Amino acid sequence: MRLIRFGESGKEKPGVELDGKWFDVSSIIKDYDESFFAEDGLSQLKELIESKRGILPEVNKSVRLGPPFARPSKIVCIGLNYKDHAEETGATIPKEPIIFLKSTTALIGPNDSVVIPKNSQKTDWEVEFGIVIGKKAAYVEEADALDFVAGYVLHNDISEREFQMERVGTWDKGKGCDTFAPMGPYMTTVDEIPDIHNVNLWLKVNGKTYQNGNTKNLIFSVPYIVSYVSQFMTLLPGDVISTGTPAGVGLGFNPPIYLKPGDILELGADFLGEQRQQVVAYKP
Amino acid sequence: MRLIRFGESGKEKPGVELDGKWFDVSSIIKDYDESFFAEDGLSQLKELIESKRGILPEVNKSVRLGPPFARPSKIVCIGLNYKDHAEETGATIPKEPIIFLKSTTALIGPNDSVVIPKNSQKTDWEVEFGIVIGKKAAYVEEADALDFVAGYVLHNDISEREFQMERVGTWDKGKGCDTFAPMGPYMTTVDEIPDIHNVNLWLKVNGKTYQNGNTKNLIFSVPYIVSYVSQFMTLLPGDVISTGTPAGVGLGFNPPIYLKPGDILELGADFLGEQRQQVVAYKP
Repeated sequence: MRLIRFGESGKEKPGVELDGKWFDVSSIIKDYDESFFAEDGLSQLKELIESKRGILPEVNKSVRLGPPFARPSKIVCIGLNYKDHAEETGATIPKEPIIFLKSTTALIGPNDSVVIPKNSQKTDWEVEFGIVIGKKAAYVEEADALDFVAGYVLHNDISEREFQMERVGTWDKGKGCDTFAPMGPYMTTVDEIPDIHNVNLWLKVNGKTYQNGNTKNLIFSVPYIVSYVSQFMTLLPGDVISTGTPAGVGLGFNPPIYLKPGDILELGADFLGEQRQQVVAYKP
Repeated sequence: MRLIRFGESGKEKPGVELDGKWFDVSSIIKDYDESFFAEDGLSQLKELIESKRGILPEVNKSVRLGPPFARPSKIVCIGLNYKDHAEETGATIPKEPIIFLKSTTALIGPNDSVVIPKNSQKTDWEVEFGIVIGKKAAYVEEADALDFVAGYVLHNDISEREFQMERVGTWDKGKGCDTFAPMGPYMTTVDEIPDIHNVNLWLKVNGKTYQNGNTKNLIFSVPYIVSYVSQFMTLLPGDVISTGTPAGVGLGFNPPIYLKPGDILELGADFLGEQRQQVVAYKP
């Protein structure tokens, strides 16, 4: 299944994409939130689609898409998880996953504008394959880890490099600015992806391809990551883990290339759909 | 006012402490959550107390206290914000605040047990003065920052030093383990603290005093911190910023002293009350 949320920011309703059309399921499902995933809402949704497919209200595709799930308790990100990206940033290959947290206030829809923060000179892009947690997960074994996953989502892990690396302390300063986490267009359930370690993902700026990777090049695999993160913090249903970005970010060029107002970001991944963001300046 | 939440974990009800007694306000207030703070719930609560003080149901003080607010969207922490603590850990005084995020799944009540994580050898304590945000705050000026604060809370920023500093990447790995954020006993509203930069805070382990600080020694002040964090991420009503810990953590001793099952943590701060935690081993 492909879960979508549509409508005005902060008032999105849940829906599904079926054969390229969008349908409203808000008469039955309150929202795709922690309770939904915890109470096996995906099974209910599947039954709903099978039994009521003919009578679900269709949604006009001109409507805005929000992120495909409600604000999660946390967005955990893995740093430097593709060898080529670690090399382009001048970092060594990590011996174990790098974890950082992204403020959930950064979450936006897949085609919303990305705002360059006030005082920012170094706003950059990062196409990523995101994991959506389906069940509460603490100290999960790698062999069992995929049982705790509800689905996957496309994520543009927008990053301010000066805030992240030149402003003292952890990376969290440059990762959680407002609009820095476009997610969607939909969450794809696990059954729809034949091999999660063979998914192409790409990103273009103003029509030019900058990133072109594949999850087969992840240093740490999806089940390894879920298991690993769950050793340090409990993952709740609806939480997101973003698995890192392949080579081709702006920071990796000499001189680096950063986003400016008017730029157009387009990105996509097999099975996860596509996003398009306009970059805009901060306005009070 | 002093806001409390009481009852079983995950099912806490809102209440208030008045003259040392606890009263249930759940018939009027749903919870101390983002909506409560955003919709000026504090003013409503004040009116409620004034008009119905005589008829509010009293709560038996044998009941468990939860954290004094619902799970926030984020817990932001400031690192190395007391000169003496920076020195004891061998770190240099930061030129600007160090920010990290603490997984909100770490949040527990003030007297709940602190669990030493699986595979942990270096679990440590940190008494802190916490800020509770009252209004949505983005790019706030230092001069206006206190207008965005609802109150203050005592926080034990429990930290696993190996996870934090020896396991690659940011500090977030060692800060967000389950039970690592005891908060409470109550949230004290801003009007009750005459000078937030003259608040004593202390912590004892097994009856011996290890920390004994005062917020007058903060490197970065409360309004400076609120303004600073709001330059990097939007703060939502109910979010917490913990302002850092004074000297006296286990890491600062030679050899370091870390927590073991059976240890008793007692901590407190002027105006913010006291906490008491038993340290226990992780059990699956």
